[in-house]
Amino acid sequence: MSRINASPALRILGLDPGLNHTGWGIVGVEGNRLAYVACGRINPPASAEMGERLAFLHEELGRIIALHQPLEAAVEETFVNKNAASALKLGMARGVVLLAPALAGLSVAEYSANLVKKSVGGHGHAEKEQLARMVKMLLPKADASSADAADALAVAICHAHHRKAAQLEKAAS
Amino acid sequence: MSRINASPALRILGLDPGLNHTGWGIVGVEGNRLAYVACGRINPPASAEMGERLAFLHEELGRIIALHQPLEAAVEETFVNKNAASALKLGMARGVVLLAPALAGLSVAEYSANLVKKSVGGHGHAEKEQLARMVKMLLPKADASSADAADALAVAICHAHHRKAAQLEKAAS
Repeated sequence: MSRINASPALRILGLDPGLNHTGWGIVGVEGNRLAYVACGRINPPASAEMGERLAFLHEELGRIIALHQPLEAAVEETFVNKNAASALKLGMARGVVLLAPALAGLSVAEYSANLVKKSVGGHGHAEKEQLARMVKMLLPKADASSADAADALAVAICHAHHRKAAQLEKAAS
Repeated sequence: MSRINASPALRILGLDPGLNHTGWGIVGVEGNRLAYVACGRINPPASAEMGERLAFLHEELGRIIALHQPLEAAVEETFVNKNAASALKLGMARGVVLLAPALAGLSVAEYSANLVKKSVGGHGHAEKEQLARMVKMLLPKADASSADAADALAVAICHAHHRKAAQLEKAAS
């Protein structure tokens, strides 16, 4: 796997947006092989004003993109089962999370949580802990210290599996 | 009024966020006097992907801030009466709208739509057209070609009226 890190493999940035915690994970892809690059969680200060929290999130995302130079990004589609006020807040974080890679010129794909779970070998209703175990099996070197980071790696893996099909579809249409 | 434009009056950026149309308006404040500076509407391309639409909105906001150099910003609180999916979309635009002034170092205040309407002399349930007429009376030079731009000017006027009280409250707490 280390060979992949040293080679100019395609890097995918996976993102799991949230206002309090946004998970991020970077996976290298070369052919059918995947390699762990990095992951973590951004925690905007909850006590700050909304603009500052969003600016914190934006700046951290910019730093991660500049450091790891991913070429494509994938974001988990937010599951909206709460009330409209909660959805509005979640939307604010999601907007900033979609913005950062777009500003850096990356393509930004979106995947449902169910598809993400299936992509790492789980079923649509897999629990967070199960998902983290699956990610660890696929990326043994991954050091995801939070469920959000493991989720973000799962989104990147999902994109690695689906990007070719999506590109072919786009080219055909 | 032209004297105010030429003097180093405080400039306030008012914003009415929306994914298809975001209204913006800039008002100069010197003591108790208000002066129209500029206003308009940002229309991110509806056919583009979400990341690109948000990037368009972000870049236009950045251009407006760089050109007009406002010192403070005010955003209308989004009225959420629709379903959670709509609120999530509106939240994405709102997140990007709150982000741009925060990144530029501006304070960002938020006001309810009812307070905004009352600030320009209307009642809480004033129609869009009535609000636009009120704005025109307070800022005769305003050339708001859309209801969104007039709304944004009303938000800036609201902030001009309330900013001192808010500052005193903040200093006391």
